[in-house]
Amino acid sequence: MIDTSNTVNRVIQYAEPGTTKTQIAELPVEQPGPGQVLVRLSYSGVCHTDYGFCTLKFNNLPIPTPKGQIGGHEGVGQIIALGEGVETPAIGSKVGIKYAADACLSCSNCLEGGETSCSFVKVSGYLTPGTFQQYCLSAARYVTPIPDGLDLAGAAPLMCGGVTVYAALKRVALRNGDWVVVTGAGGGIGHLAIQYAKALGARVLALDAGPKKSFCIGLGADEFVDFMAHGSSEDLISTVKTLTGGGAKTVLMCSSSNKAYAQAIPMLGFRGSLCCLGVPEGENVPIEGAKVTALIDLELSIFAIKTGNRREAKEALELAARGLVKSHYQVRKMEDLTKVSSDTVSNPSDNLRF
Amino acid sequence: MIDTSNTVNRVIQYAEPGTTKTQIAELPVEQPGPGQVLVRLSYSGVCHTDYGFCTLKFNNLPIPTPKGQIGGHEGVGQIIALGEGVETPAIGSKVGIKYAADACLSCSNCLEGGETSCSFVKVSGYLTPGTFQQYCLSAARYVTPIPDGLDLAGAAPLMCGGVTVYAALKRVALRNGDWVVVTGAGGGIGHLAIQYAKALGARVLALDAGPKKSFCIGLGADEFVDFMAHGSSEDLISTVKTLTGGGAKTVLMCSSSNKAYAQAIPMLGFRGSLCCLGVPEGENVPIEGAKVTALIDLELSIFAIKTGNRREAKEALELAARGLVKSHYQVRKMEDLTKVSSDTVSNPSDNLRF
Amino acid sequence: MIDTSNTVNRVIQYAEPGTTKTQIAELPVEQPGPGQVLVRLSYSGVCHTDYGFCTLKFNNLPIPTPKGQIGGHEGVGQIIALGEGVETPAIGSKVGIKYAADACLSCSNCLEGGETSCSFVKVSGYLTPGTFQQYCLSAARYVTPIPDGLDLAGAAPLMCGGVTVYAALKRVALRNGDWVVVTGAGGGIGHLAIQYAKALGARVLALDAGPKKSFCIGLGADEFVDFMAHGSSEDLISTVKTLTGGGAKTVLMCSSSNKAYAQAIPMLGFRGSLCCLGVPEGENVPIEGAKVTALIDLELSIFAIKTGNRREAKEALELAARGLVKSHYQVRKMEDLTKVSSDTVSNPSDNLRF
Amino acid sequence: MIDTSNTVNRVIQYAEPGTTKTQIAELPVEQPGPGQVLVRLSYSGVCHTDYGFCTLKFNNLPIPTPKGQIGGHEGVGQIIALGEGVETPAIGSKVGIKYAADACLSCSNCLEGGETSCSFVKVSGYLTPGTFQQYCLSAARYVTPIPDGLDLAGAAPLMCGGVTVYAALKRVALRNGDWVVVTGAGGGIGHLAIQYAKALGARVLALDAGPKKSFCIGLGADEFVDFMAHGSSEDLISTVKTLTGGGAKTVLMCSSSNKAYAQAIPMLGFRGSLCCLGVPEGENVPIEGAKVTALIDLELSIFAIKTGNRREAKEALELAARGLVKSHYQVRKMEDLTKVSSDTVSNPSDNLRF
Repeated sequence: MIDTSNTVNRVIQYAEPGTTKTQIAELPVEQPGPGQVLVRLSYSGVCHTDYGFCTLKFNNLPIPTPKGQIGGHEGVGQIIALGEGVETPAIGSKVGIKYAADACLSCSNCLEGGETSCSFVKVSGYLTPGTFQQYCLSAARYVTPIPDGLDLAGAAPLMCGGVTVYAALKRVALRNGDWVVVTGAGGGIGHLAIQYAKALGARVLALDAGPKKSFCIGLGADEFVDFMAHGSSEDLISTVKTLTGGGAKTVLMCSSSNKAYAQAIPMLGFRGSLCCLGVPEGENVPIEGAKVTALIDLELSIFAIKTGNRREAKEALELAARGLVKSHYQVRKMEDLTKVSSDTVSNPSDNLRF
Repeated sequence: MIDTSNTVNRVIQYAEPGTTKTQIAELPVEQPGPGQVLVRLSYSGVCHTDYGFCTLKFNNLPIPTPKGQIGGHEGVGQIIALGEGVETPAIGSKVGIKYAADACLSCSNCLEGGETSCSFVKVSGYLTPGTFQQYCLSAARYVTPIPDGLDLAGAAPLMCGGVTVYAALKRVALRNGDWVVVTGAGGGIGHLAIQYAKALGARVLALDAGPKKSFCIGLGADEFVDFMAHGSSEDLISTVKTLTGGGAKTVLMCSSSNKAYAQAIPMLGFRGSLCCLGVPEGENVPIEGAKVTALIDLELSIFAIKTGNRREAKEALELAARGLVKSHYQVRKMEDLTKVSSDTVSNPSDNLRF
Repeated sequence: MIDTSNTVNRVIQYAEPGTTKTQIAELPVEQPGPGQVLVRLSYSGVCHTDYGFCTLKFNNLPIPTPKGQIGGHEGVGQIIALGEGVETPAIGSKVGIKYAADACLSCSNCLEGGETSCSFVKVSGYLTPGTFQQYCLSAARYVTPIPDGLDLAGAAPLMCGGVTVYAALKRVALRNGDWVVVTGAGGGIGHLAIQYAKALGARVLALDAGPKKSFCIGLGADEFVDFMAHGSSEDLISTVKTLTGGGAKTVLMCSSSNKAYAQAIPMLGFRGSLCCLGVPEGENVPIEGAKVTALIDLELSIFAIKTGNRREAKEALELAARGLVKSHYQVRKMEDLTKVSSDTVSNPSDNLRF
Repeated sequence: MIDTSNTVNRVIQYAEPGTTKTQIAELPVEQPGPGQVLVRLSYSGVCHTDYGFCTLKFNNLPIPTPKGQIGGHEGVGQIIALGEGVETPAIGSKVGIKYAADACLSCSNCLEGGETSCSFVKVSGYLTPGTFQQYCLSAARYVTPIPDGLDLAGAAPLMCGGVTVYAALKRVALRNGDWVVVTGAGGGIGHLAIQYAKALGARVLALDAGPKKSFCIGLGADEFVDFMAHGSSEDLISTVKTLTGGGAKTVLMCSSSNKAYAQAIPMLGFRGSLCCLGVPEGENVPIEGAKVTALIDLELSIFAIKTGNRREAKEALELAARGLVKSHYQVRKMEDLTKVSSDTVSNPSDNLRF
């Protein structure tokens, strides 16, 4: 057991949930309880959902995030201590911490693979302290081993963004050559979605603002459409349908505006599906386009997922370790959290270094 | 080849599409062309979609039904003549005619099982003469053999209603014991949905007006909820969630009001799905409840199908032939078409006899 | 924490592995370690695999069972103490212990559902003390909750036999009405296979010796074939093919003779599959009939499973709790272990009572 | 309708089935009947199965190939005439003719996708005249459209070899990164299997004799193992297991010796599957290694397919048209049929030009 009694744990707390205010604090390092591990984190990605937990702007939080909570749910680091009864992973293992900090693995939802909706789920950075800290306790059973050949900084944005898009694409039962439209393609999740879709054999149409074009094409997108360069939604939809030979198999919503959602369903071809990922801010309205006749005419579907489970996390990381997916990020200091944004074309993700 | 030169074919035509006016006409019997068969129909079911084709009240018809069209798409009878090149089914075979009068079986949609959305589909009773007649031409490749042990009158309502709900249920990947909510459970489609869901191992909660209760329970429904006996949608939804142990695996929309659609999504449990079948009349609005956060929170999905393909038709009929599903109908004269309705509790389907 | 310091744990040990000799011993009751629960067992089923572990007659044991091992892997009882870190299941919960006493839930095999082949699997009654005892330690994460409405004695034989046949049938992707041939249909596993196959919508042809006929039919088998009443394998196979309309979708090997295996493949119809469950004694020979041309001609397959995982266990028990499956057994005293057999027609399973 | 009354159709006939003797004959060109098309063939691949039909050396032919039969089942060309009732494909369309010359598309096997096992199947070059001719009649419904961008000579070997390996790989439900072992990897089928497996995201271990190494690696194989460079089967198996990280997900048998089959099962990892494609000559023996305990220990499976259906053919050709798969062949004159062989490293397939 490592002695951490004189070590300080620097953390980022949500100072006033409902605002964007954060603060850095220095706390003692806690020791792992039975079934837990202590992880010395190296990096944490910053996800749009963190913004929601901090500002309370998402419209599906059952209770507000507690004042002083430590945010973050895309952490990677190394195990430095094991709680009682823990045999694996061993001390020194590189592991990641995901959106779900823990799941029971035994309830009905867990047994069918829905660990993020576990009856006892603990969500990192919401009601459970997250990964915006140097030392993080986690359930041994729920950390994700980082495969050899994957650097820690590159792994961080995969822990939520990568796992989520991979899990979404697995649900679609893609055939090689199917067209996947990625909205928000140049962003933190979108740039991973392009690569995972390509790795799974799809053809990708990337949708984003013009300056993202070369970045998206460089990641493997077969087509790029500038959503701002069309006079109307009808024009945009028509362009997408033409380029995809009659409509996409899937639209993966890596953006989160209600307008983007409204345009998505008409972009689909026969038996296509809209995958809801991004959580819209603001008014909670039905998806425009989710009309019964439109759905029946082309036998469309709409589905939604929160993020992936442990198996999907493992598979998503393996693809990255084989070099098929590479996250693009910039490394920031902890102090920079409130300044992070997606405004740089080539570094869509932000990684805090601890 | 049978000589039909002196035979009269009594048919029901839509006298003025856009209204409910129909007329009976006497036409010559046509001879089957290459690849066709001539079927002497015994019965035709009457489906809610026929009403849409006649009155043009559905909001998804690309062009209006032609004046004088012969309606109907749930016909059963016997083959009495074969066109050139036809070897099977043999003369004398009992066959059914479905919503799709023909599909090419070779286009992209057909190859993946979406025959009803065939690029060359011919829809019975809409742009192709349907089954409201005594003698009907049909594509040999697209008629459905009626298995031994299934009476013709009982088979008619299965050709669209039965096939559709069976196909819908196959899409859901039900596990034995999953809860299926059937709306409009005592109606023409609904009473078949109860039975198919039970035959596939589901538990069924039937939703309809109070007087339908004993009929639905008699068909095997595990629970019945009177949707009119609840003060509010919230009450109704809450009752359904309680009875299904937290929410249904699937809500099968065998009714077609926008209000029923609006109530459906909140009735679902984790990873549940809403299956759109009934086409709402009136204003074409998004499904209330198809909100992104609601879908993400429980990882729900929405899907839609038109009706089943030849394989699903075969399987649906086999279940009925084994006695697991039995259509309840009343036999009517051709002249009665405009009087048919669903107002009788125990005979939800109407069968025209020719 | 219950005080068991003065309690005696009566156990059955394999006195001389390689023989059928067993002995009853009285041991102290152990306390659960971190992550463990202590279960006061009420019953344990006796499985053919226990016989293999005791006599070493199966040809796939990597190392012999240790002398003095406590056998058994179909135990049911009540939790009376929790080890450190255990929150669920609670004290008082009724639970079952399966073939796998524990699995890590995190290795590659576990993540894809193959818990019985976990890299760290502990097998009850082989290298880990099993369920032939009054007090059994078990991993909290791996015990199976017994649903309300299922009596403990009836649940015991399901913990291996029931779970295994259910898992096997799930692999087959049965359609309602498919024919399943169950060999050894009147035995401990076979009589459960009949019922699970029926619950999943299959038609069942039960194969066993003549006196088992009424028992099998009473359990729901659609057809019974006396395998001893046929002059030759060809006759037997021909009878089965006729009764199943051209060959079965699946043959579930609940018997374990090489001869029965040899007859199984020719009983299959197009795209049928042979499911290997029973482990043959004696010489380890290829399955007669596993010839390339025979497999190609009908596109057949052969697959094998050990037993089910936690999810399959849960689902198998739920079917039983709903009354769709009922194990038939006789209750024996611990002293009777070496006398247990399958010789009684109506009580194919043996349950030891503690 | 084209006038072919003065045109000669040069064909290759099996002069004496049971030997390798063939003869070239000149026959009149036949006109297409109802539902048929007349195809002017440009090329026909030569498949190992043709050899079986000619020499009768395969042990699964129910009746011998008729004397004088025209062989071949991998033909590509252009439609030059349509029979009565045929609307598509149009005259001028480039199409391929497969192993099955026709299937009814309506029988039970056809409806579940098993067209090659259609109750009325007509096999090209066996009981129905095949593709070793300049003018071939075919069922309009069963020819396969050749997508733009795929040259005819390159398409020919895909019509059986390509479709078959693609269909086999679809059955396996591969995950990206799974290891596929291809035996006979440098041969006519094997070299396509390498490419299809890669296109579907697998990692490929190619097994063949040493001189094929650079060819296989050039096609994308991740590993190559020279099966002749190992002292024993145990050594070979051990090498394969090491390179695949514990055993393959699938062994695709593109070779046809009983010895290769015997080595295949021990090369599999947990839940791996052996896919039987090549038909062994000589004695019809069970697959060595298909032992119950071996199958159960790793939950292995064995399956077999004849070849793919129309949907799989379409998908297989699309992958080739997108440049992901390229057949390697040499073009031969019709007269060379009896000289074709697989002895050239870089041109594993032989194409006859008409």
